[in-house]
Amino acid sequence: MNRWILSYDDYDPDTEGLREALCTLGNGYLGTRGAAPESSADGVHYPGTYIAGCYDRLPAEMAGRRTDNADLVNMPNWLPLTFRAADGEWFDPDRAQREGRLLSYRQELDLQRGVLTRLVHVRDAQGRTTRVAQRRIASMDDPHLAALETTIVAEDWTGRLEIASALDGCVVNAGVERYRNLPEVHLTREKNPEQSDPELLLLRASTVSSKIGIAMAARTRVSVPAERTYRAEDGWTGQDLTVDLHEGVPVTIEKVVAVFTSRDRAIEECGHAALTAAADAGGFDTLLGKHTLAWSRLWRRCQLSVDHVEVQRILNLHIFHLLQTVSEHSVDLDVGVPARGLHGEAYRGHVFWDELFILPFLTMRFPEIARALLMYRWRRLPAARRAAADAGHRGAMYPWQSAADGREETQRVHLNPRSGRWLPDHSHLQRHVGLTVAHNVWRYYEATGDIGFLAEYGTEIMLEVARFFACLAAYDRSTDRYEIHGVMGPDEYHDAYPGRDEPGLNNNAYTNVLAIWVLRRALDALAALPEDRRTELRERLALTREEITRFEDVARKMYVPFHDGVISQFDGYADLEELDWTGYRDRYGDIRRLDRILEGEGDSPNRYKASKQADVLMLFYVLATR
Amino acid sequence: MNRWILSYDDYDPDTEGLREALCTLGNGYLGTRGAAPESSADGVHYPGTYIAGCYDRLPAEMAGRRTDNADLVNMPNWLPLTFRAADGEWFDPDRAQREGRLLSYRQELDLQRGVLTRLVHVRDAQGRTTRVAQRRIASMDDPHLAALETTIVAEDWTGRLEIASALDGCVVNAGVERYRNLPEVHLTREKNPEQSDPELLLLRASTVSSKIGIAMAARTRVSVPAERTYRAEDGWTGQDLTVDLHEGVPVTIEKVVAVFTSRDRAIEECGHAALTAAADAGGFDTLLGKHTLAWSRLWRRCQLSVDHVEVQRILNLHIFHLLQTVSEHSVDLDVGVPARGLHGEAYRGHVFWDELFILPFLTMRFPEIARALLMYRWRRLPAARRAAADAGHRGAMYPWQSAADGREETQRVHLNPRSGRWLPDHSHLQRHVGLTVAHNVWRYYEATGDIGFLAEYGTEIMLEVARFFACLAAYDRSTDRYEIHGVMGPDEYHDAYPGRDEPGLNNNAYTNVLAIWVLRRALDALAALPEDRRTELRERLALTREEITRFEDVARKMYVPFHDGVISQFDGYADLEELDWTGYRDRYGDIRRLDRILEGEGDSPNRYKASKQADVLMLFYVLATR
Repeated sequence: MNRWILSYDDYDPDTEGLREALCTLGNGYLGTRGAAPESSADGVHYPGTYIAGCYDRLPAEMAGRRTDNADLVNMPNWLPLTFRAADGEWFDPDRAQREGRLLSYRQELDLQRGVLTRLVHVRDAQGRTTRVAQRRIASMDDPHLAALETTIVAEDWTGRLEIASALDGCVVNAGVERYRNLPEVHLTREKNPEQSDPELLLLRASTVSSKIGIAMAARTRVSVPAERTYRAEDGWTGQDLTVDLHEGVPVTIEKVVAVFTSRDRAIEECGHAALTAAADAGGFDTLLGKHTLAWSRLWRRCQLSVDHVEVQRILNLHIFHLLQTVSEHSVDLDVGVPARGLHGEAYRGHVFWDELFILPFLTMRFPEIARALLMYRWRRLPAARRAAADAGHRGAMYPWQSAADGREETQRVHLNPRSGRWLPDHSHLQRHVGLTVAHNVWRYYEATGDIGFLAEYGTEIMLEVARFFACLAAYDRSTDRYEIHGVMGPDEYHDAYPGRDEPGLNNNAYTNVLAIWVLRRALDALAALPEDRRTELRERLALTREEITRFEDVARKMYVPFHDGVISQFDGYADLEELDWTGYRDRYGDIRRLDRILEGEGDSPNRYKASKQADVLMLFYVLATR
Repeated sequence: MNRWILSYDDYDPDTEGLREALCTLGNGYLGTRGAAPESSADGVHYPGTYIAGCYDRLPAEMAGRRTDNADLVNMPNWLPLTFRAADGEWFDPDRAQREGRLLSYRQELDLQRGVLTRLVHVRDAQGRTTRVAQRRIASMDDPHLAALETTIVAEDWTGRLEIASALDGCVVNAGVERYRNLPEVHLTREKNPEQSDPELLLLRASTVSSKIGIAMAARTRVSVPAERTYRAEDGWTGQDLTVDLHEGVPVTIEKVVAVFTSRDRAIEECGHAALTAAADAGGFDTLLGKHTLAWSRLWRRCQLSVDHVEVQRILNLHIFHLLQTVSEHSVDLDVGVPARGLHGEAYRGHVFWDELFILPFLTMRFPEIARALLMYRWRRLPAARRAAADAGHRGAMYPWQSAADGREETQRVHLNPRSGRWLPDHSHLQRHVGLTVAHNVWRYYEATGDIGFLAEYGTEIMLEVARFFACLAAYDRSTDRYEIHGVMGPDEYHDAYPGRDEPGLNNNAYTNVLAIWVLRRALDALAALPEDRRTELRERLALTREEITRFEDVARKMYVPFHDGVISQFDGYADLEELDWTGYRDRYGDIRRLDRILEGEGDSPNRYKASKQADVLMLFYVLATR
């Protein structure tokens, strides 16, 4: 057990998908799943490359309902690299395993250096044995570069070796089974001309509706003389290289790939930028040197030490994947934190409230990354204002799921794979996401003292969120209390009262208490500004003395439900039934998706005292644990 | 004389170009020349709209030499709006003036509120008199919006009025006479379909080689019922509106335009963003209210008061145009300061060293704008490193002219319009531009104390520039001094020694002294960092103790030329001839372009003690006057 190494000693098609996700390499700009370079999407393998912030929206039909869907686009696959003896079959560990010819298969992810290694020992159908060693990086030094080095040794044969290297833009978004009804083709497919430099391949594509230009350039070099043949199809460009392989003499193929999009800064055009970067890049070892230096810098800033080696490894794995999802290279991208990183297509790459959990780790180590994540929200303040206005409110209503332009991306129906039924999805009622955004602004300011950010951007977010909740809260004269109705808390097991058609709950404790906190902190933020900036902001937002009084009044008189001396999750939680936990565990084993189990039985978690995420604990996490 | 109003009481075709430049409206995102809405590029008028940072490069031939040229693109003209009585001629003040029917023409630019007003009183060929009042803004509140309000009053007639409103993407870059040999067509021309909302027009285009998507949406509303006819051609989309005009009853036409490009943040696709913004925008008065509120905020931050009203007006005019060129809306755009603002095509929109003069004004008032301008340079550090390496040096060599990707954009030949001759242009030898960049970083840090910027970005720029000049400086053992050869100083009258073919001068005092300053401040910056950041940076830049010693040594022993007890502009300046100033003034009058005059005579300013910009004064300006 090594605290820096995630290793696999064999090949297991059944768990390959999970392994690919865990072996993803990324740098905050792009992420590439740890799929085998010779593989394609076939139910076992799923090569996926995702570029932060690159979404595409297509019309979709869900449960007979016309809608649309924005996906984090599966970008062209830069990995394709395979080989064969001239008269043999293409390298295929899956088939070799089925036919008992896979002699050994080892894969290692080095978390310290960000290197994925694979060692394969295989015999082909003609009985020739070959050793393959591959190393792969997604450069943390230059986020536009990725590289794959392949070393091939013929153990007991000599002959012609054919190598195929390609860029595959015919990939689709099909990584998640339950989204299979959504439109999959998000990339245009063009035929790309041959480059004057024979080592280079260029693939251009564009997302279908968001029209983001993408360019990948690959430079393939071999350690021995090679003949090259260019091949291109719509959305696919490649070359075949033929070399002489001698028994016991290693041949090394180095594929260096440069990736740019039309969203990138400091470029003129992404195709030109990709070609130049691929041509100018150093060799694999040079890139590896800079890459590991960058990782050593990150680990110096980020390492948390514990005594238990397995716990340490898990901790390292989490930090590793976090830093691959958001990094210093994210700062210029206008991106949030996608719920599943750049590691796959779950949650369609959307941005929920995850920065709540991530910012405390980042702010002290990389304040400029924290600031950039908050700027993603500030830029979408106009969209949040429009959403609030459309709902009849003032201020800003941030969406539960956010992507390119900040509109609400939450689906309105979702599939229960257990029952096969399409169900209404009310999770957009998680209005508390806006409280998170405002909260994060203040925590960032507390940690950094960045008054410039607070003055130009942060206070505006906080005031507009506060304004929305002050507007959402309704005054009950009989109790002299403000109440917030019709929302969902973080606990997604409850989206309505039992038996009622209308979605939403009243006085979710998490929402109400955090609203109090945000109303107060928004006024603290305003008070923290230099007077001229405060005047400007109040003038621009038309924030009157009366409205400030309302903020104070709502904060002072917000209702918080209690039962049995503890905070109730929401009004009426005490009246829900107790679930037969033992019975369900006995019957189903894994009851993590209790909601699907109950729905499958024609029941609903709304009836029970059962929480997916415990709101009240969240409350203490958010407010007390900093 | 009003300190806030630039006014014109008549119409003068001869000076219309200058008036258009001075009456440009902008907001840091876009700038639109003060051209008449009914005009097109015809030698008198030149409608031009420029979006910050949107360049396009096309192959060009200059003086028989194949090269290429990057222009700040003249974007689609959003202004077109004109009218006629149903049986009459289209509104045409030029023709009316020629035919004595232009009764009055008044134009006013309100610098305080950013409003351009035009009042025209005209009689048509049939003898009908009409009054036209137009107001125009480029919103400082929402940088994607611009608006034109036109009020028409028939003084002595009643009848059908035809109004034509359009978006014209058939414009070209032809605003500067001496660039006329450069390729002009930088926009693709497509035919745009009619929108479902009859009030809306959409024009999409793309820059030819840089492939930036552009979308403009116009919403045209009339104060009385109108019939509409949609018309579209490749690169042009418009509508004709027909209304009944009654004698003495004003009709108001309001054209609100939304502009987006594929480089914009927080959008999904620029066409969708433009349509949504145009549909959602308030009416002219609402937009005007927000716009003037934004300007009042800017003036509160920026006003400088002097007693003399004319001086005050000129000062206001300069500040006004500065704030229209770079504003809070520039922060997210990755742009520098183009030498001629967003006001026209001179200097092809390139970025020279002008932030040197502008940052002192901006840093204390808008630190986030100053930071953004420095980030434009930081993002182009890789290009500057590449340029230095290509020239055989270490560190970063910033280009004299910069545009999209930070490559050197300076032309290698230029035209003397006086002689008609094409001459070699050596101004790329103004290596001092990099010293400016490093200098600005340190001044920004001094003013703001933004140690985060210094740690993550600023020190890296300073060290890489210092490294370049430490490398450029050659040690002369005989004098125990370092010298810098083969450069140009800010004074562009001198680019070589008299009679020598090889360009460049030795030991330009401005360059050498500022290099000393930058070498020392770069080490100060490094010393100012927290130790862990200093270690990271030295490691990443492979900055050794030996190299730091070299920095110190070069700074201590840099040679600075003197003659007659004063600093020489460069080695050998004392030996140049005195110019016959009186003779030249007598012969030519305006001798501001003495270089062209002398070249026209077959002579050269290189022979004389004549400075275009006085380097030594610049030195004191840069180092002493903060």
